[in-house]
Amino acid sequence: MKTVIVGGVAGGAGAAARLRRNDEKAQIIMMEKGEYISFANCGLPYYIGDVITDRWELLLQTPESFHARFNVDVRVRNEVLSVDTKEKTVTVLDHAQNKTYTESYDKLILSPGASPIVPAMEMEGKERIFTLRSIPDTDRIKAYVSEHAPKTAVVIGGGYIGLEMADNLCHLGLKVSVVEAAPHVIASLDEDMSHEVHNHLRAKGLDLHLGATAQRITADAVVLSDGNQVPADLVILSIGVRPETGFLRDSGVELGPRGEIIVDQYLKTNVPDVYAVGDAIGVKTFGAGAAAVIPLAGPANKQARMVADNLCGIPRAYHGTQGTAIAKVFDLTVAVTGENETTLARAGISYKKTFTISASHAGYYPGGSTMIVKLLYTPEGKVLGGQIVGRDGVDKRMDVLAGAIRAGMSVFDLQELELSYAPPFSSAKDPINMAGYVAGNVVEGRMTPFFVEDLGNLPENAYLLDVRTPGEYARGTIGNASNIPVDELRGRLDELPRDKEIHIFCAVGLRGYVAQCILRQNGFATKNLSGGYRLYSAVKNDLDARGIELQNCKPCGAPLDE
Amino acid sequence: MKTVIVGGVAGGAGAAARLRRNDEKAQIIMMEKGEYISFANCGLPYYIGDVITDRWELLLQTPESFHARFNVDVRVRNEVLSVDTKEKTVTVLDHAQNKTYTESYDKLILSPGASPIVPAMEMEGKERIFTLRSIPDTDRIKAYVSEHAPKTAVVIGGGYIGLEMADNLCHLGLKVSVVEAAPHVIASLDEDMSHEVHNHLRAKGLDLHLGATAQRITADAVVLSDGNQVPADLVILSIGVRPETGFLRDSGVELGPRGEIIVDQYLKTNVPDVYAVGDAIGVKTFGAGAAAVIPLAGPANKQARMVADNLCGIPRAYHGTQGTAIAKVFDLTVAVTGENETTLARAGISYKKTFTISASHAGYYPGGSTMIVKLLYTPEGKVLGGQIVGRDGVDKRMDVLAGAIRAGMSVFDLQELELSYAPPFSSAKDPINMAGYVAGNVVEGRMTPFFVEDLGNLPENAYLLDVRTPGEYARGTIGNASNIPVDELRGRLDELPRDKEIHIFCAVGLRGYVAQCILRQNGFATKNLSGGYRLYSAVKNDLDARGIELQNCKPCGAPLDE
Repeated sequence: MKTVIVGGVAGGAGAAARLRRNDEKAQIIMMEKGEYISFANCGLPYYIGDVITDRWELLLQTPESFHARFNVDVRVRNEVLSVDTKEKTVTVLDHAQNKTYTESYDKLILSPGASPIVPAMEMEGKERIFTLRSIPDTDRIKAYVSEHAPKTAVVIGGGYIGLEMADNLCHLGLKVSVVEAAPHVIASLDEDMSHEVHNHLRAKGLDLHLGATAQRITADAVVLSDGNQVPADLVILSIGVRPETGFLRDSGVELGPRGEIIVDQYLKTNVPDVYAVGDAIGVKTFGAGAAAVIPLAGPANKQARMVADNLCGIPRAYHGTQGTAIAKVFDLTVAVTGENETTLARAGISYKKTFTISASHAGYYPGGSTMIVKLLYTPEGKVLGGQIVGRDGVDKRMDVLAGAIRAGMSVFDLQELELSYAPPFSSAKDPINMAGYVAGNVVEGRMTPFFVEDLGNLPENAYLLDVRTPGEYARGTIGNASNIPVDELRGRLDELPRDKEIHIFCAVGLRGYVAQCILRQNGFATKNLSGGYRLYSAVKNDLDARGIELQNCKPCGAPLDE
Repeated sequence: MKTVIVGGVAGGAGAAARLRRNDEKAQIIMMEKGEYISFANCGLPYYIGDVITDRWELLLQTPESFHARFNVDVRVRNEVLSVDTKEKTVTVLDHAQNKTYTESYDKLILSPGASPIVPAMEMEGKERIFTLRSIPDTDRIKAYVSEHAPKTAVVIGGGYIGLEMADNLCHLGLKVSVVEAAPHVIASLDEDMSHEVHNHLRAKGLDLHLGATAQRITADAVVLSDGNQVPADLVILSIGVRPETGFLRDSGVELGPRGEIIVDQYLKTNVPDVYAVGDAIGVKTFGAGAAAVIPLAGPANKQARMVADNLCGIPRAYHGTQGTAIAKVFDLTVAVTGENETTLARAGISYKKTFTISASHAGYYPGGSTMIVKLLYTPEGKVLGGQIVGRDGVDKRMDVLAGAIRAGMSVFDLQELELSYAPPFSSAKDPINMAGYVAGNVVEGRMTPFFVEDLGNLPENAYLLDVRTPGEYARGTIGNASNIPVDELRGRLDELPRDKEIHIFCAVGLRGYVAQCILRQNGFATKNLSGGYRLYSAVKNDLDARGIELQNCKPCGAPLDE
């Protein structure tokens, strides 16, 4: 069997390696249009930022080492120009020899990846405008920085790679601006979870331009749609990627609206003997089953191994991409998995949400920090998605949640998870248990939450009650809230109006819940602010910095079906 | 409804708080024989070690604060002496007043906890011999250390608390010895995973006595069963705990062989209206369903909340204890979940095992370290248990595994887990994915492992082949192994004997697997050393330090059903 693989990075190299382990006799040819295979593309921003100092560390395999280990015919700088699926051949341009040749295949695996989108606009000073995908891109940026010592940088696009680049350029001492067309950074995060990130970026000295697009790039600045001119000795374009599938145009291989390769659950295309994996394919989301293009390293690597097995007659179904993702954003960790309010609203799935704020480990053990966990679930409690922003231990809780979603767990299952506890690592009730407890209370109707986004539009009979201590209250509260500390509440019920709906809040929601239990059982109508004053402050600080009134802040996704 | 709760720490206080939230009108009396309620018992070793410096941090609640928040009648220094389940009363000794009284109940929740076992032996110098369970115990140890400045300490018992105490006493500058009756520390860890821990303890300057019991304590030493006399200015007894259920002797409440309170899945005892939770109860293990007593904070807290709901007519079944546990042992993290080889052998459950050694995050990103993951699973692949020893990121992988076991996942499900990946946090194939891949290869017969324990007793036709590089080989190999680097193997097949079973190994098992694929498909009979030279070295170094031959090292649990 002769297999040709198009692309030699995560998907291609992974498939080649497994294919060889499965079949020592197979003929395997791996075509890579670039000079490098199987390199650490997720590490590139960190090499630019001098966090990774040895360039060799990025080169996980060389063509020689890969050939020695896996007996694969690795052809770098060999670009596949077209595929003839009838003749079962590919036409290849060998850049080194500058000649074109044809190679036949029995099986074809497409793993061409995706390339950065370059926005159409007027650009002066192109020598300092970069995209980042490959080792040569990285070398160019690194060389430019060391030769020209830029003082200012503009990163256009506030997604994961944009923010990682911003982090690393700041690490090099540059003054960095980030321009994001959407109202918030990281598209897979809901708006309400993004405020914390915005505040942190500003606190780190970043110049943040949200809801603005770059209109043109002059010799020394980026001109924005809102009229701002942002100084730019260096520009990074990171507004996204698109599947690099132009070579398939006349191949008969079905492509989707974004140029993505359409595959079935066995990663087969519509054409016999042609398979595809990685950033260039369309996938179904694991939860809603929606068609999507989700370029992530984890899924690409998993698909690579699966496709090799499928080729060898060991059936492996790909069950969809959850979109679990994480980024270090300066001192914060931001992580998401599963559906968010936007994707749920789009899919018409009704859901509930809660925010819990928990310590990364036992409060009495030094070095802990807090994290905000947003949990999305069906009205019956099935977990749909989660988002976590914090410092320590975010990755752990995200991975537990990602596993729980894969397993189809409910919020009640989260309560029962028996996670590892000792004071340096967690609390006896882990943040994920806590998220399950609070969500369970909501599902069972024991707790009725309201949200920061509701504060801009409270009902007329709303009465705001701050149940924190007088000291906390004195340092700031929400609107015209009254203050009765939860521990005094039982003795001061007569101070509360019986004809109003009491909108309770505390610092994070816990005391508010206790207060809600007390008031409800004493006949009051109540709601409790999910995420409490802590989340409110994050939202308020961000909106204040942007000159936006809370009233004008739109709720995430669809209205909740309360 | 009048509920009396016996015990005011994790189980009791947690039940009281949820009970109040459920029912604002209930009468709740919480009896605690000690002076403190709801204190941070897992934090006590760290306060002794000056890692936690503020004693108040340990006191999560006072009787006053708990009453103010939850309107619970908290009675400290009130010891329940007996229970009359016919009359539905408890007899209580009020230590402050030094008088006995009777209290009636409608519902009774038993959460008396467990007390440290004090071994029966001759003990001189009792003023420097301590157990550790309570705040007063902690105060006494702390006072002794500051007043007498002991230079040497002996910790009798190498379980979690013993090792945490050893760690903290070393942190104070003492020369610490640990005496453990079993051949290895931490009973829930299998022998093969313990060697790494032993080596680390020795490297940290700890004096380790395994397979030895304390026979008596003299004025300045502990005399061991092997004749050693270990200097002991201070002695900590931490050989285990037993349920503190003496007060139930004549109550009619059924107790198990270890004095544990027998409960059903709703945490009800055999006596109507009497419930029990926490360290004093018998549980079923989540996997094998075996009867066990598993004193852990996580399960106690979960049971507390459940029992309160059950009391209020909200049925919550407790589905068993998995025994997920973790400890920081100096710079190592040691974590376990589910079944181990000992419990599987006892339950007669057949299983397979594999070891994988993975980096905590992408190798090219600085600051990573490796961890050893041991996975236990049925011959069909259902995950039964796991053990991890490493430095960074052990807790994360353990929690993912713990969740996977709760969800009933197979090793193939582990392969598909879409965990969060960016270079600072993990690899595109997380260590748990890798464990799933390797185990899947074993289940599907693609990889046939052998184990370090087999090295002492290889079959006659075994041929040891080291497929690492000549450089690695030169620095040490196993026995009389030949060396053919995996990357040269295809060209040197004729150097290998066709009548022997080739026992392959590499550093961790990965190159060995590639070599196995090559050799098998060329007609050789092969096995691959699970965990590779890395695990072998850990075992060998530990056994050498103890003067034990590998041949005399017994395999874990039952023989594998290969």
